[in-house]
Amino acid sequence: MTRILLINPNTSKEVTNLLMRTAPRFARADTQFVAMTAAFGPRYIASRLGVAVASHAAADTLAEYLRAATMRADATILGCFGDPGLVALREIAPMPVVGMAEASVLAATQLGPRFAILTGGAPWIPMLEELVAAIGMTARLAAVRAVPQTGAQIAADPDGSLAGLATAAARCVGEDGADVVILGGAALAGLAERLQDRVKVPLIDSLAASVAMAEALARTAPAIPPPRAAIAPVDSVGLSDALGELFRTPRQ
Amino acid sequence: MTRILLINPNTSKEVTNLLMRTAPRFARADTQFVAMTAAFGPRYIASRLGVAVASHAAADTLAEYLRAATMRADATILGCFGDPGLVALREIAPMPVVGMAEASVLAATQLGPRFAILTGGAPWIPMLEELVAAIGMTARLAAVRAVPQTGAQIAADPDGSLAGLATAAARCVGEDGADVVILGGAALAGLAERLQDRVKVPLIDSLAASVAMAEALARTAPAIPPPRAAIAPVDSVGLSDALGELFRTPRQ
Amino acid sequence: MTRILLINPNTSKEVTNLLMRTAPRFARADTQFVAMTAAFGPRYIASRLGVAVASHAAADTLAEYLRAATMRADATILGCFGDPGLVALREIAPMPVVGMAEASVLAATQLGPRFAILTGGAPWIPMLEELVAAIGMTARLAAVRAVPQTGAQIAADPDGSLAGLATAAARCVGEDGADVVILGGAALAGLAERLQDRVKVPLIDSLAASVAMAEALARTAPAIPPPRAAIAPVDSVGLSDALGELFRTPRQ
Amino acid sequence: MTRILLINPNTSKEVTNLLMRTAPRFARADTQFVAMTAAFGPRYIASRLGVAVASHAAADTLAEYLRAATMRADATILGCFGDPGLVALREIAPMPVVGMAEASVLAATQLGPRFAILTGGAPWIPMLEELVAAIGMTARLAAVRAVPQTGAQIAADPDGSLAGLATAAARCVGEDGADVVILGGAALAGLAERLQDRVKVPLIDSLAASVAMAEALARTAPAIPPPRAAIAPVDSVGLSDALGELFRTPRQ
Amino acid sequence: MTRILLINPNTSKEVTNLLMRTAPRFARADTQFVAMTAAFGPRYIASRLGVAVASHAAADTLAEYLRAATMRADATILGCFGDPGLVALREIAPMPVVGMAEASVLAATQLGPRFAILTGGAPWIPMLEELVAAIGMTARLAAVRAVPQTGAQIAADPDGSLAGLATAAARCVGEDGADVVILGGAALAGLAERLQDRVKVPLIDSLAASVAMAEALARTAPAIPPPRAAIAPVDSVGLSDALGELFRTPRQ
Amino acid sequence: MTRILLINPNTSKEVTNLLMRTAPRFARADTQFVAMTAAFGPRYIASRLGVAVASHAAADTLAEYLRAATMRADATILGCFGDPGLVALREIAPMPVVGMAEASVLAATQLGPRFAILTGGAPWIPMLEELVAAIGMTARLAAVRAVPQTGAQIAADPDGSLAGLATAAARCVGEDGADVVILGGAALAGLAERLQDRVKVPLIDSLAASVAMAEALARTAPAIPPPRAAIAPVDSVGLSDALGELFRTPRQ
Repeated sequence: MTRILLINPNTSKEVTNLLMRTAPRFARADTQFVAMTAAFGPRYIASRLGVAVASHAAADTLAEYLRAATMRADATILGCFGDPGLVALREIAPMPVVGMAEASVLAATQLGPRFAILTGGAPWIPMLEELVAAIGMTARLAAVRAVPQTGAQIAADPDGSLAGLATAAARCVGEDGADVVILGGAALAGLAERLQDRVKVPLIDSLAASVAMAEALARTAPAIPPPRAAIAPVDSVGLSDALGELFRTPRQ
Repeated sequence: MTRILLINPNTSKEVTNLLMRTAPRFARADTQFVAMTAAFGPRYIASRLGVAVASHAAADTLAEYLRAATMRADATILGCFGDPGLVALREIAPMPVVGMAEASVLAATQLGPRFAILTGGAPWIPMLEELVAAIGMTARLAAVRAVPQTGAQIAADPDGSLAGLATAAARCVGEDGADVVILGGAALAGLAERLQDRVKVPLIDSLAASVAMAEALARTAPAIPPPRAAIAPVDSVGLSDALGELFRTPRQ
Repeated sequence: MTRILLINPNTSKEVTNLLMRTAPRFARADTQFVAMTAAFGPRYIASRLGVAVASHAAADTLAEYLRAATMRADATILGCFGDPGLVALREIAPMPVVGMAEASVLAATQLGPRFAILTGGAPWIPMLEELVAAIGMTARLAAVRAVPQTGAQIAADPDGSLAGLATAAARCVGEDGADVVILGGAALAGLAERLQDRVKVPLIDSLAASVAMAEALARTAPAIPPPRAAIAPVDSVGLSDALGELFRTPRQ
Repeated sequence: MTRILLINPNTSKEVTNLLMRTAPRFARADTQFVAMTAAFGPRYIASRLGVAVASHAAADTLAEYLRAATMRADATILGCFGDPGLVALREIAPMPVVGMAEASVLAATQLGPRFAILTGGAPWIPMLEELVAAIGMTARLAAVRAVPQTGAQIAADPDGSLAGLATAAARCVGEDGADVVILGGAALAGLAERLQDRVKVPLIDSLAASVAMAEALARTAPAIPPPRAAIAPVDSVGLSDALGELFRTPRQ
Repeated sequence: MTRILLINPNTSKEVTNLLMRTAPRFARADTQFVAMTAAFGPRYIASRLGVAVASHAAADTLAEYLRAATMRADATILGCFGDPGLVALREIAPMPVVGMAEASVLAATQLGPRFAILTGGAPWIPMLEELVAAIGMTARLAAVRAVPQTGAQIAADPDGSLAGLATAAARCVGEDGADVVILGGAALAGLAERLQDRVKVPLIDSLAASVAMAEALARTAPAIPPPRAAIAPVDSVGLSDALGELFRTPRQ
Repeated sequence: MTRILLINPNTSKEVTNLLMRTAPRFARADTQFVAMTAAFGPRYIASRLGVAVASHAAADTLAEYLRAATMRADATILGCFGDPGLVALREIAPMPVVGMAEASVLAATQLGPRFAILTGGAPWIPMLEELVAAIGMTARLAAVRAVPQTGAQIAADPDGSLAGLATAAARCVGEDGADVVILGGAALAGLAERLQDRVKVPLIDSLAASVAMAEALARTAPAIPPPRAAIAPVDSVGLSDALGELFRTPRQ
């Protein structure tokens, strides 16, 4: 059995519910999910400011889980296609942590020469181009495209978003030369399978890729030791008890 | 159920047996393996020449499988830590193809800031440094190290190789600053778990990473359409019937 | 006159006082400083977790300033040599925002072919190597070195830290080939001038570089318009009023 | 006198004849050619699968030559603009080995700031973009363009292909900003001189560049010692005697 | 007080006068300028040949200054947006040397995610793309655009150039996605402020950025020691006395 | 017959004579050389300042040749292993121009996986590392090493330099892992063949590589048209008549 912690760094319970409802469709029969919603931050992350706040919120959520959980998850999925705080979560987590964007990009590069990312909201375009560069995959990136609706709007009206997404995905293939298209975003979870028959190349659902990668990493590296360079204990103020405790007693 | 085709591009049945024997230990209960050994080529790949021949042999093996198989595999693993012919296999395969080196590297980058590769045989060092560069992960590479024995020698005497591998892995951590160490090579399959308690960071078994990635990609993208740019049919000479047929009637 | 907002994303008032006390020594006579300390987070940032929390805290601090200030600062300095939340601050700030690390690196590259960074605490080494890569200056980086003490410990005992810093700086020059050495860290502000006569190449004080760059950018681009791609308003929970307001009414 | 071995990794005798007929036009008076056609593989290489098979076939051909030749060639030209197996040939050859694509690209970069590649068949476009990246010259690449006909079709009807090639070459200059255009492909050998007066920038014939580079390298480094890291002898199956012998007794 | 040496490597006194007239508008009240015009070379630099000659001329001018000046400047600005000879000037100068292009690019990257450069004369486009690559900022470059007029022509008729520059700047924003636009060129000094209200993003005047950066670096690193690797004295012929002296007695 | 213009941008007649005496040894029987010495500049180039002056001097020398020559050379060799002014010479030359460093590096990369550069004088080390980066071959560079003597000193006492060069070349192979070693420098012309039997990998004489590459490019691209973007005529002062004429009437 594999236990996966789903952290929604958006504070929208609707998105948490969407993730929780959709994830099992992509998972093994013996995979169990537990979902947590960030305690603070924007309802939907759609800016660099949102990513900054969510980096803290995601770490805070994981800290809460690590303190409270009676059974440790085998892997954690960071459920926002911007991977806010991913490296911080990896520093504190004793299990593999999967970033929705990173996992999707790494899967895509194994499925064809060039991939494109399709998401909601124009401000994400430069942010995701920079994220792909940080991952090291710029040479494989055909394009990042966005429909005008934000993820929140797509989640609120998925049916009304399909036509626009299909048109944009077709452009990723026809104009940008993508061999694979990632449908990126927690709020877009589950839409790829509804669009696949309108697109000639594999469409990757970022939640599906994350679930599969989490299951894979949980088996590949079941335990993650503390960072090699010992982190000094430090006091903090104004943080949740759980997060403050992590600063005070870092994993050694 | 997931069906995985294991292609051993080495022509050593012993390595095939090792892969076939070890893979299920890393796999889900409902994953089934079928293994095929390359019909021609070196017993063990340990040079650029070996990689060149194995690129053909691996493609030939997959072609045989595609023609003969009554049930299609859900994913293919290319069982040599040099990924010979990987892009060619992806061109012809209707299912995801996993390269042992690529899958290990991509897993490693998700498990810590820097990774090292440890394998057998000094000629692999520059070859693997170039492979990591081609994958796009040079910035994350701490070092490639090799023990003096070739993979074939390690496979023939795994017990006698453990001490040397443990020492080299410790150097990857202590001198090179690796947060994760990949034990790379088909012939080293199964050794990571025997060495893990002597190494402070996660040791990745390249077969384990490949099996988990194959299971993951099989779920993420169950079908792979033909290449976007149509490949022209072409006659050939001196090839197996199965491979010749692939040239004559490429997937469209 | 130039008004500079100093944001200390560490929650240590001692560091804020150190910045406030030292900054004027590096500034023009007509430059005025106002300093704010982050309302929450670790006393001293020395980990990826610390950076994640401080990204939020720095943005929160700037939000408070933007709401409360009767006179707008001409530039903002983010007073931690890890630039936590820098891109987020730039998204929300109507004035130039200077990152202590970025400003120091960009100054250093103009003063000689190769630079090194010297700071406190080994965990910073890989973090700063990645930061230099993100800035685009890896080809110019001779080395990142760290003395064993954390920045907090150096700030608490600067006199006792000088010998170790001098030795390490000499290694940056003698072994790594640095033409310029950055003494990086809010807690190290003011130490470069005490060490300069023991080092053969220019020593850059990261606070001095930041103050000078802030004065420069304030003149080069006195006003910064909102991001080109309009950011959608979004509700939030659990944030300070000032930061919540920024999510609700992003600059347009 | 310079003796050049021309290896045609395509199994098309027509292409071999074309190379053999055209090469002397680009060569010194005292350069002699001997040509060999691959013993197996596709008639014309136009896919990643073709490159994989040709990597083996090219190595096999060189092995045959090395065993049979009474007089050693001074240089070898790998006569396919995809350089199949180039690094493997360099591992086994005691003389310089020239790749048609690499030689053309390196010549082009010395003749102007940016170059374009023009070839036959759309599947080559991403393959050549990746090859240029592997060579290290992406920053100098203006574009890769392809006419719809494959190289085989161009070789069969060169006159009918000229107009399309001229139009595409003009686009490389006018739209892509190329200062030099490479006409790439064994099957296109000899066409550049027929097109040059229709194009404002230097047109490089990939065979001409290869012959000149082979003559140059034969003088620059007349002998190539074995690889620095000793390659272990290994048995093989199903290979030609000559190639099997190379595995059994690698150069030391 | 800060003393800045303005070197105009163009031999046009009009441009020197323009720099001298405009620089104080961008400078602190207590900054004083002294300007020198190159003793030889083209009236206006607009080619790679011009850059080559100006590299010598700029070094020659600085050598003259260093020999003759009774008071040493605190910083030097190299007043051509191609930075001719910048690394040579830094080798010989005991004070910071600012390149107009480099300073503008480094300022721009601190003011927004992507920048564009707008200048006069199409031959500058590839030259500046290469310069940005050498600086390390290609990933941040949205585009380089040029109006048809050369800098000389713009300097001769600034009013008549404004419309074309405004149109091109708008394209940098609307088509290329620039968040900041650099108006690059000594001859364009002072035009940015006249165009700013027609452009939605910050327009950087390359002279303004240079003056501010020079003031900043003068404070950050008031003295620059000789190069770490001692340069051997060497005789020369045909150079000015001052420059010949620098070869004969390099800084040690 | 091939006519090659050898430009010595050093003003040392001894080096010119050395080049003129040695080049024919590396050339075809029907290759003729004409050598010109720069009219001004340092006797020997060994600094960034030297490179800057030599950029002008090399262009000036070519301009003189272009005006005076009754028969046009088929190729030009820029005889300094720092390639001063190479891009400028290519802008004005109607024939291929070969840089000694670039030609050697491009030859080396075709002869083995990794190359090292060995030259005279420590200040060249960072300069050549930057040059290799600009060429695009950093990933292939094993090391740059320098013996303490400058090129001038080596040229004055070649016999006394051999032992030190042999030791350093052995380190390039044994410690740095170079498969090929370039002996770089006009003043080192002819020494590689004297050292080859002491080094296990191919030693490249930078003059030999340049001559062979010049012969090759002369055949590959016999004529080079003017730059695509028309360069505007411009007056100049203080230049030789020939160079001034090139500014006044650029090639169109």
